Amino acid sequence: MFAQASAGQCPKPSVAVLQNQGREMMIVTSGAVAFGRQRLRHEILLSQSVRQALHSGQNQLKEMSLPVLEARACAAAGQSGLMALYEAMFTQYSTCTAQILVTNLDFHDEQKRRNLNSTLHELLRMNIVPIINTNDAVVPPPVPNSDLQGVNVIHIKDNDSLAARLAVEMKADLLIALSDVEGLYDSPPGTDDAKLIDIFYPGDQQSIRYGSKSKVGIGGMEAKVKSALWALQGGTSVVIANGTDPKVTGHVITDIVEGKKVGTFFSEVKPAGPTVEQQTEMARQAGRVLANLHPDERGEIICRLADLLTEKKEEILSANKRDLEAAASSGRLSQPLLARLSLSSSKLNSLAIGLRQIAISSRYSVGQVLRRTRVANNLELEQITVPIGVLLVIFESRPDCLPQVSALAIASGNSLLLKGGKEAANTNRILHQLTQEALSIHGVKDAIQLVSTREEVEDLCRLDKMIDLIIPRGSSQLVRDIQRAAKGIPVLGHSEGICHVYIDSEACIEKAIDIIKDSKCDYPAACNAMETLLLNKDLLRTPMFDQIVDMLRVEQVKIHAGPRFASYLTFSPSEVKSLRTEYGDLECCIEVVDSMQDAVDHIHKYGSSHTDVIVTENEETAEQFMQQVDSACVFWNASSRFADGYRFGLGAEVGISTARIHARGPVGLEGLLTTKWVLRGEGHTVADFSESGSMKYLHENIPVPHRIPS
Amino acid sequence: MFAQASAGQCPKPSVAVLQNQGREMMIVTSGAVAFGRQRLRHEILLSQSVRQALHSGQNQLKEMSLPVLEARACAAAGQSGLMALYEAMFTQYSTCTAQILVTNLDFHDEQKRRNLNSTLHELLRMNIVPIINTNDAVVPPPVPNSDLQGVNVIHIKDNDSLAARLAVEMKADLLIALSDVEGLYDSPPGTDDAKLIDIFYPGDQQSIRYGSKSKVGIGGMEAKVKSALWALQGGTSVVIANGTDPKVTGHVITDIVEGKKVGTFFSEVKPAGPTVEQQTEMARQAGRVLANLHPDERGEIICRLADLLTEKKEEILSANKRDLEAAASSGRLSQPLLARLSLSSSKLNSLAIGLRQIAISSRYSVGQVLRRTRVANNLELEQITVPIGVLLVIFESRPDCLPQVSALAIASGNSLLLKGGKEAANTNRILHQLTQEALSIHGVKDAIQLVSTREEVEDLCRLDKMIDLIIPRGSSQLVRDIQRAAKGIPVLGHSEGICHVYIDSEACIEKAIDIIKDSKCDYPAACNAMETLLLNKDLLRTPMFDQIVDMLRVEQVKIHAGPRFASYLTFSPSEVKSLRTEYGDLECCIEVVDSMQDAVDHIHKYGSSHTDVIVTENEETAEQFMQQVDSACVFWNASSRFADGYRFGLGAEVGISTARIHARGPVGLEGLLTTKWVLRGEGHTVADFSESGSMKYLHENIPVPHRIPS
Repeated sequence: MFAQASAGQCPKPSVAVLQNQGREMMIVTSGAVAFGRQRLRHEILLSQSVRQALHSGQNQLKEMSLPVLEARACAAAGQSGLMALYEAMFTQYSTCTAQILVTNLDFHDEQKRRNLNSTLHELLRMNIVPIINTNDAVVPPPVPNSDLQGVNVIHIKDNDSLAARLAVEMKADLLIALSDVEGLYDSPPGTDDAKLIDIFYPGDQQSIRYGSKSKVGIGGMEAKVKSALWALQGGTSVVIANGTDPKVTGHVITDIVEGKKVGTFFSEVKPAGPTVEQQTEMARQAGRVLANLHPDERGEIICRLADLLTEKKEEILSANKRDLEAAASSGRLSQPLLARLSLSSSKLNSLAIGLRQIAISSRYSVGQVLRRTRVANNLELEQITVPIGVLLVIFESRPDCLPQVSALAIASGNSLLLKGGKEAANTNRILHQLTQEALSIHGVKDAIQLVSTREEVEDLCRLDKMIDLIIPRGSSQLVRDIQRAAKGIPVLGHSEGICHVYIDSEACIEKAIDIIKDSKCDYPAACNAMETLLLNKDLLRTPMFDQIVDMLRVEQVKIHAGPRFASYLTFSPSEVKSLRTEYGDLECCIEVVDSMQDAVDHIHKYGSSHTDVIVTENEETAEQFMQQVDSACVFWNASSRFADGYRFGLGAEVGISTARIHARGPVGLEGLLTTKWVLRGEGHTVADFSESGSMKYLHENIPVPHRIPS
Repeated sequence: MFAQASAGQCPKPSVAVLQNQGREMMIVTSGAVAFGRQRLRHEILLSQSVRQALHSGQNQLKEMSLPVLEARACAAAGQSGLMALYEAMFTQYSTCTAQILVTNLDFHDEQKRRNLNSTLHELLRMNIVPIINTNDAVVPPPVPNSDLQGVNVIHIKDNDSLAARLAVEMKADLLIALSDVEGLYDSPPGTDDAKLIDIFYPGDQQSIRYGSKSKVGIGGMEAKVKSALWALQGGTSVVIANGTDPKVTGHVITDIVEGKKVGTFFSEVKPAGPTVEQQTEMARQAGRVLANLHPDERGEIICRLADLLTEKKEEILSANKRDLEAAASSGRLSQPLLARLSLSSSKLNSLAIGLRQIAISSRYSVGQVLRRTRVANNLELEQITVPIGVLLVIFESRPDCLPQVSALAIASGNSLLLKGGKEAANTNRILHQLTQEALSIHGVKDAIQLVSTREEVEDLCRLDKMIDLIIPRGSSQLVRDIQRAAKGIPVLGHSEGICHVYIDSEACIEKAIDIIKDSKCDYPAACNAMETLLLNKDLLRTPMFDQIVDMLRVEQVKIHAGPRFASYLTFSPSEVKSLRTEYGDLECCIEVVDSMQDAVDHIHKYGSSHTDVIVTENEETAEQFMQQVDSACVFWNASSRFADGYRFGLGAEVGISTARIHARGPVGLEGLLTTKWVLRGEGHTVADFSESGSMKYLHENIPVPHRIPS
């Protein structure tokens, strides 16, 4: 059951939607005074000079001086219009409404209270939405800013206290108080550092500073909070949220009911752990220490984690077993997903081996000098690699991702927030504990934080001032969702791999067969697998063509024909729906092109700039293709499956990026680094270098120590 | 005057707002049938089993079978509710409404037409919004999908044709037809390549394919377009837009009236030039050729442009004079902005010198080999630099930005869309012509496009599939606006420079004075100027402190005291409002810190990670500071003003970035480049490298040719 205090234009459709879903809703409304004031003003102006208003310019009404109106009269005049509005709106959704006007006294008289209570229950039982308002016409309007008297007594002074009173009286589960600000801030909104409080616990009340003047009307935010606390004590949870933001108005109530992070939630129960904001801050602080450790110390942490993976094998596998059992009994995971969720002794061993390799790479990541310049005498500039800051890695069911990604973050000196799948909760918890144990050997335990499974990805993406880079590890759908949700935070990932193999008229038949087979069949679900095979038109009706088709048939690859290819065929495989399809399975599209140039154009039009291959014996054609194709990876006579950090020899692999800035293609540790410029002088000023100054720019390159690629 | 066809939940507040701004509005509404169907259904169900519905579960209503209802009865039943809704809503905005029901016949009878016309005019004159609907209760509902008979005759078969008829009849300027799709697409929405048409010209009608079934109701999109064309022929412009999207509903009508790009605009007048989408496509195509030119050829283009700047000096200065005169006569530009707008012979000369330097840098940009790896025998990998793709550079009044940015784009092989300020339109036009003239010498004229001044920045930021990087050049406000508007397109720029100078207890007094003076006073408006001076507490009440304050006083720097500094003072300069202020003028904040560590914490809390300076003679303290401060530039005993691409010796300067990925701090040509991976094999497959395979990864680094930093 919900009671709701409505401010101005509240989102009525949500209420009707929820009502039709079987939720019981009551609305506590304001607006009668404002509504009536408009109406009375209009009436007075019309009666003052009806002829003038009708027969002269259109803006006449505004220019006339407006009378001061009495609030009670306004309330009376507005009430009928307000109810007509509610009635008309809810009728659109086949929802009936009822009008209830109450005064303070109705709650003091026991008989009246019982009557009100039973009337409301009866209306709700009949699926009718009660619209409740104070009877402002007979009761004086409340005195602004007068205190509520303690939390055990509450007077009906405004809609917030009325709503709180009614919510408790009716034993409502949730009271949503719509305001014209986002919620409760820890300092007056607009001041330095003012932050929206997501969840407010009664014990925290001391930490709030209220502004001297609030925009939220009678009683201000302080009175709203008191009402909320009163309702909370009476057993009703409360959310204070913005009901006026046009961007979210349509959704605010349904979002709150669905448990999304909107506004400020008042709760009795303080969760044990820190909030995600506190976790991020802890991670950043500890990450600064991590970044300043000696590379060997970072390597030691990673090796310690590798040791722990084998030392604590039993505990890890038993946690993993609990996850697998839960997944099996819920029956929600498919067989491939269960396989990804499952850990084994050998998986942990190879994980540990991988981690030790990352430990080696880590020696050449942070603090590398990329460039040195003598700007002038005794003025030397260095560009050095530094960590990016706080990374957020979101990964799906595979729990082995956790130690891998943690090792990469440690190696690059970054802080890390990890958000894993619910289905791997137990495994992730133990793996994270071990990671923190390893971090502890150099006092940076907090640099890697596991975010609670309750946190929504969308809420994490909101932390744009706190998170520097998001790395989604999982399906291309996950990557796309996160790219959409990440407002202002860069995302490193590839969303699609529509890779092409072009077989030139001068291709060697064996190489063509081998490369097509490897590119499509080695691991069809990989993003670097071939999706479209482009054949030079000269190959049609040649033995090579027949051999290619035979091989694909033997390998059970389902063929979809591109429009041109279909027009050449007498038999007809299914025609493609789109030339931009990522099959991710033993399926591919075949299309015919006139020439290498035509293949390049096709790839530019339908490709995803991931990896594209030419098979030809003609070097000039190959070089032309590789120069022209604008993809992260372009290969000549090699399988598309080589597009991979390990195969490229990058050491630790962070992922594959189809973005065009920062990192592109397979990404090693470098993708987790940025640079900073360090300048050492002796009191140099730019004025010294002006025309009349004493100094000259030299800009000499100073050799940098040889850098082993990480 | 506006006529509007409304679908479902149209945004009435907009109408009221516009009406109150003195616009004349009519609403052609639908919804009566749907409204009435809801109501009748409800009545029938209630009368069928009123007791059952009242006394059992809440979802009873849904589970009962619903009767089939006759449309005319629904219309009659819905009409009153619909009008009540309009009335109630408009009353909120003090706006009166009137109900008009019309039939086809009303337009055939001359007398009725005249009556209708004069009634509508009279209502509009009285500031009353006519709500117009077909009289569905007496006229049969229209037959779906029957064609309108030619464009010269139009029947009132649906709300679109009714609205078109009325708009022409009333000589409306604009008809807004709200639909449930974004507008008109060139192919059925959802198919490959379906693109929203921004502006539709009658001559283009052949290029549209309509879907067999449209979601837009009676008549479908084809009928909507026919109505729109009919209205257009009658002299009324038309916009078809989405009126149901909750994200934009609140704004759609006002946005359209303000001329923003929403939905599809039907216009008689086809503009001379290509659309911005066509320009982007042209730029990308020509850019691919540009990227594949020899570096010397790109250098030649830039040198040719440098020559043209001096050869065509007269024409450039005369165009600039026209802009200056227009700006002066409008009186809208301040003196500093006029100075920025103004070109001179000497400015053009130094511009040409700068361009020739970029031409030299350009030799070492595209196609540099950054890394070579022997992956296996005869399998060699190269990472080479390539252009990013299509850049959008948005710059404010300074027209000298245009050739500079163009030269940088040419040097890095990128395509470029230029969007300059309106006030420099004439100067930008001639400079762009000269740029294209220079590009023509190697046949890539279209690689750089000047976007018409009519285009809104927001609309350009919508082209996320076409533009790879946005570079705003101008005020930090411009950068922030664009970062907000750029959905999914990366933005390279710095939004704020809150630079700190920390004077350590072991600072040398002369260096401190020189560096503070240079950092603050050399060019106070620059982003690398000092905003906050942090003083070690040991310096208070020392001669150094007095000298610093005296110097600032002599230089007329206004001092704002941080909270701690204020507490030490007997005299009191104004206390800062926020420690995060970028003054950009001869003003700064002074704050006291306990130690170097305290200074680092202050910088992390209040800084913008741009440039921060320590002044000390203690090398260990300096190195600690430079290691810990997490900013793009950290300097020891040097002015913050050195944070600049030219002073760093980067050659051509793209800008300064405070982003943490891709490029950070002063950015040279490298910031406009990305990389691609080129792999050359002999038919290699990853299967060859499996445990049972014949090959082994070597991953040997092959030396790369020495690269001169660009």
